[in-house]
Amino acid sequence: MSVNRAVRLHGKHDLRIENLPIPEPEENHVQVKMSTVGLCRTDVHLFEEGRIDYVVIDKPITIGHEISGTISKIGPGVTSLAVGDRVAIDPCRPCGTCTQCKKPRTNMCLNMILSGVIKIDGGFATYMTTPAYTCHKLPDNVSLEEGAMIEPLSVGVNAVRRARMSPGDAVIVTGAGPVGLFAMQVAKALGAGKVMMVDINESRLQLASKMGADLVFKPTLPTSDPQAASEELKTALGSEADLFMECSGAPGIVDVAIHSCARGGKVMMIGFGEMAMYAHIGMAAVREIDILGAFANDNNYPESVELVAAGKVDVKSAITHRLPLDKVLEGMELIKSGKSVKVVIDCTS
Amino acid sequence: MSVNRAVRLHGKHDLRIENLPIPEPEENHVQVKMSTVGLCRTDVHLFEEGRIDYVVIDKPITIGHEISGTISKIGPGVTSLAVGDRVAIDPCRPCGTCTQCKKPRTNMCLNMILSGVIKIDGGFATYMTTPAYTCHKLPDNVSLEEGAMIEPLSVGVNAVRRARMSPGDAVIVTGAGPVGLFAMQVAKALGAGKVMMVDINESRLQLASKMGADLVFKPTLPTSDPQAASEELKTALGSEADLFMECSGAPGIVDVAIHSCARGGKVMMIGFGEMAMYAHIGMAAVREIDILGAFANDNNYPESVELVAAGKVDVKSAITHRLPLDKVLEGMELIKSGKSVKVVIDCTS
Amino acid sequence: MSVNRAVRLHGKHDLRIENLPIPEPEENHVQVKMSTVGLCRTDVHLFEEGRIDYVVIDKPITIGHEISGTISKIGPGVTSLAVGDRVAIDPCRPCGTCTQCKKPRTNMCLNMILSGVIKIDGGFATYMTTPAYTCHKLPDNVSLEEGAMIEPLSVGVNAVRRARMSPGDAVIVTGAGPVGLFAMQVAKALGAGKVMMVDINESRLQLASKMGADLVFKPTLPTSDPQAASEELKTALGSEADLFMECSGAPGIVDVAIHSCARGGKVMMIGFGEMAMYAHIGMAAVREIDILGAFANDNNYPESVELVAAGKVDVKSAITHRLPLDKVLEGMELIKSGKSVKVVIDCTS
Amino acid sequence: MSVNRAVRLHGKHDLRIENLPIPEPEENHVQVKMSTVGLCRTDVHLFEEGRIDYVVIDKPITIGHEISGTISKIGPGVTSLAVGDRVAIDPCRPCGTCTQCKKPRTNMCLNMILSGVIKIDGGFATYMTTPAYTCHKLPDNVSLEEGAMIEPLSVGVNAVRRARMSPGDAVIVTGAGPVGLFAMQVAKALGAGKVMMVDINESRLQLASKMGADLVFKPTLPTSDPQAASEELKTALGSEADLFMECSGAPGIVDVAIHSCARGGKVMMIGFGEMAMYAHIGMAAVREIDILGAFANDNNYPESVELVAAGKVDVKSAITHRLPLDKVLEGMELIKSGKSVKVVIDCTS
Repeated sequence: MSVNRAVRLHGKHDLRIENLPIPEPEENHVQVKMSTVGLCRTDVHLFEEGRIDYVVIDKPITIGHEISGTISKIGPGVTSLAVGDRVAIDPCRPCGTCTQCKKPRTNMCLNMILSGVIKIDGGFATYMTTPAYTCHKLPDNVSLEEGAMIEPLSVGVNAVRRARMSPGDAVIVTGAGPVGLFAMQVAKALGAGKVMMVDINESRLQLASKMGADLVFKPTLPTSDPQAASEELKTALGSEADLFMECSGAPGIVDVAIHSCARGGKVMMIGFGEMAMYAHIGMAAVREIDILGAFANDNNYPESVELVAAGKVDVKSAITHRLPLDKVLEGMELIKSGKSVKVVIDCTS
Repeated sequence: MSVNRAVRLHGKHDLRIENLPIPEPEENHVQVKMSTVGLCRTDVHLFEEGRIDYVVIDKPITIGHEISGTISKIGPGVTSLAVGDRVAIDPCRPCGTCTQCKKPRTNMCLNMILSGVIKIDGGFATYMTTPAYTCHKLPDNVSLEEGAMIEPLSVGVNAVRRARMSPGDAVIVTGAGPVGLFAMQVAKALGAGKVMMVDINESRLQLASKMGADLVFKPTLPTSDPQAASEELKTALGSEADLFMECSGAPGIVDVAIHSCARGGKVMMIGFGEMAMYAHIGMAAVREIDILGAFANDNNYPESVELVAAGKVDVKSAITHRLPLDKVLEGMELIKSGKSVKVVIDCTS
Repeated sequence: MSVNRAVRLHGKHDLRIENLPIPEPEENHVQVKMSTVGLCRTDVHLFEEGRIDYVVIDKPITIGHEISGTISKIGPGVTSLAVGDRVAIDPCRPCGTCTQCKKPRTNMCLNMILSGVIKIDGGFATYMTTPAYTCHKLPDNVSLEEGAMIEPLSVGVNAVRRARMSPGDAVIVTGAGPVGLFAMQVAKALGAGKVMMVDINESRLQLASKMGADLVFKPTLPTSDPQAASEELKTALGSEADLFMECSGAPGIVDVAIHSCARGGKVMMIGFGEMAMYAHIGMAAVREIDILGAFANDNNYPESVELVAAGKVDVKSAITHRLPLDKVLEGMELIKSGKSVKVVIDCTS
Repeated sequence: MSVNRAVRLHGKHDLRIENLPIPEPEENHVQVKMSTVGLCRTDVHLFEEGRIDYVVIDKPITIGHEISGTISKIGPGVTSLAVGDRVAIDPCRPCGTCTQCKKPRTNMCLNMILSGVIKIDGGFATYMTTPAYTCHKLPDNVSLEEGAMIEPLSVGVNAVRRARMSPGDAVIVTGAGPVGLFAMQVAKALGAGKVMMVDINESRLQLASKMGADLVFKPTLPTSDPQAASEELKTALGSEADLFMECSGAPGIVDVAIHSCARGGKVMMIGFGEMAMYAHIGMAAVREIDILGAFANDNNYPESVELVAAGKVDVKSAITHRLPLDKVLEGMELIKSGKSVKVVIDCTS
């Protein structure tokens, strides 16, 4: 195809499908022919708000940050990749020079740019260019569609790693969306004793069971009474939780999480709801329950690819809908409706 | 002396000095002739409430848990200690059989008993008995008075270790009481880049400077505006904090701490104020700022003794008042007045 | 049964089956009715040498340290166990007062005694007594026979944990005996990418495959040429090793391990052969390949029980022979012949 | 100066001082006006062998890798640095795309190039260019001469960090050259209990005392009897070693180190002598003594700069000789004679 068809966000509620010139790879960059790219709640947020946190969309940007494709051209200086390589692309491009990058804690980069989210073009397109170091080769037994799931999977890997889960830990995961389902599987792959998935949507709980959750639970009590709500969870789990991974963003759920943990346990926030909240933080401190968060991924692509290649994580079953490039808006409606789990866009269509 | 003179708490506001028989050491226990024993805010709390958390004083107990003394008799089976050995005594006696003890995470023991606090007699007495394993020998260059400070020092060591401080970290400590002063020195001893002590009491700040704080600061803005209060602290520090150790228990201070930290930073709660509070926990999660607590000590006596022996921590300067055994109530009044830093009781008087 | 039938080692080559009085539990101890107890190469060594390292058998001792049974009587002070509880018993009894125990690093205890090995009676008997803290309750879905395998499994858990294996790591395990087979499964349970078992015995390799090894390999080249021998292993594995767990004790194998590892890899020695050897230690240092060892277990019983209960490790398939109590010598011959993998003794027979 | 005067190695024993054009900074690079650059044993090795390990000097290269200077020109795209900034330059330039870089474990990069050592020009010159990310700004209280010492200091920081030293640890350092002296100070800064420096050169031991070693010792027994040689060291130290940092490269010293460590201790090899050796590795494994190495630095520049800025490490006292740019060969002779500790080159002369 001699044109680069791309889904461009021009600002709040202004999404256009445009024909652009095919981008040429600069030094140390590659050109990638897009394959499958995942659609994410962050894309919906960008479309509806025209911003992400303090970063405003002030010039058109191609969105899409859960990216896979095939190398189609090599820029000067690239030796680690060849035309034809199938890759997953990490959207994070840390600056490499700030204090966070020098620690190194690249996901906390003070000048982070993110393909498809902050300042640079992403994956809902026929082609994109990206630095060679962002490309992670896929083994033969990992499909390009699975490759697009490496990004949300890497978020789960970062979360479980940062939480320093121990083998045999009893784990609760709230929110059976893509990140929750992947985080649940990562916990199991890394040795969790039993993992219970909690959601109010029964079909998602069925999916969680299919994807390996040891237990699933639909809560009946409101988060406004964290003591009672946690008792219900602990009874269902059969013990207190050693690790509580919050992927729902539901109001009040963090306080329920604190009440559900054993002494020395951990609350890991992956789904972000409110920025400020009322919770029993002091009680958590006395019981040495750590309250933690995980943002994006911190060099977790290699192990995420390994987990899929080794058959330890099933990312494919989370994909409920496949749409062509010009149906991105329809995909966003699906996400908002709650009827889909993961929607992916076929950029070759 | 042929009698055991002891400070006994019979219940809320009922403290009596009594003459008891001298206790004989059981198997694997030793009898210790008390020397200096520190008085702590927890003792005041026990006296005023007749309870600690959910544990009620339901029978008389000898209080005092910051304990040093000299071995005066050896029980059957003890080989690691001899009469005349000078020791600091860890008040924690984990059960050894619960799930927390088997991790091992002994300070989270589900059946913890604590000499002088929970169920068993402590140190404000002429003699006490204790299992041999709770006794930590003091090197020749560590005095018995310093030995009594090992307990609050070990709390600071546990906190800094659990916070996984990195060398060069910029550290803020709020609350220049004994635990804050010791935690500040531990941070410096383990390689903190600069440590700023924050308190509203100027004489305590002077003491902090003398004991090695790189910076001291008296805040002018209320914690009710965490954004502004944190800006003031960051300006005084010259940067964001990598580690914020909260030892004051002041209302609202945890939210100030969250706002004061760099991405990837840590808030460590050591002084416990409210059990529940409103704070920007979600914002902390996105920035991967860990919200942590530390309770008592987790096998930190050996390194605490080492830190004093190596001259890396000055515990002596925190001792502002020395009182005889029958003046424990007077010591409690001193603590409540805020005029003292650390009050110690001379049990030989 | 009103007698305690026990397998007693009186010294080198002097093993007797004797009728002893039934032992009564002291304070904080329990009496256990023995069920299945595993026979181990260490037992053979004790019988043939009359010593283990520097510890000589100078008075009769009941051997057997891979122990499971049912609580038959409770001593004074025991609250965590009840008659009828099914337990695995950790043979290690660290002193609790030495510098190693106070770190805590209990498996390095300077005064270690070991049920059935050093100074105290073990499990080849009708009854034994042991401190309550050494007993680990078995969940309903873990059999007593599996309980006897917790000890060798815990050795593997200690090794993998000490090696700080990362998920996705490529792992080689040499020596498909019980410890090697268990260490292999632990590596897989904790997220290894692929694990290759190496042995010269083909039936053991078949067992390894059945128990979950991704690859098995029978080497053709001698360890005396570590460069060539490692090339063969790397080719079979398809990459360099991130972790090389040595459980064979074969001469020269450590140098092969060093040559087989990727930069930043780890050689973990679990099977102990020679105490001194020639190897490319300097080359390992430049490549930051850690050379590590693991001894016994370091509080790894709880997670070992969890791994079996969760179905992540199959210990049962390693048991190839079951013998009655009076056939311990026959079991030792089986081990020496190499025809068995794990021999267990049924103490109820 | 309108010319770039540079010390160029053309091959084995062929060092020339040449006038080259002043290099212009490419994209994301800066031009640096050289200040002080340290001379290192590696430079001597390069000169005498014309190679380092498997990398042969096949085209002329400007040597010098302990580099400080002042930014003199900014290339396109650089925003984190400005003309006039004083910087220490990390010579390591990992590729960013290999498996090691993606872990990230950049010092193990499979395609590492090193300013002044492998493939690219280093610091013995009037000017050099380097990527912005390699530059680490020096605080006002750190001199450019101290800046040149960040590289060898960072090697010590990497070593102590990789060894996971605990506070209070008893540490032995063998070899009081620059790296040994810096590693010793890092150990102290990060909380070592006592550090003993060992060397056969008395004036170096005096320098070690001045720079903060708690103890110094000149051994009298040969390494060929590791048991006896270690007894002598342990007696001088007053205990076994928790950490033994080997910076001498002396034959046989690693086996002495193993014998000198407490159970659970660590041998860290920093000075590299022989690649293969005979040592009690099996004994180390049983005692869980880790045998480790450290190579170059692994993102340790920021904390190294902090340690100097905070006054915790004195790098200046190690500098015994200062020479002008055209006296590099003379400096190499000094190093070989053993009369110098650290020789630095003033590139402005």
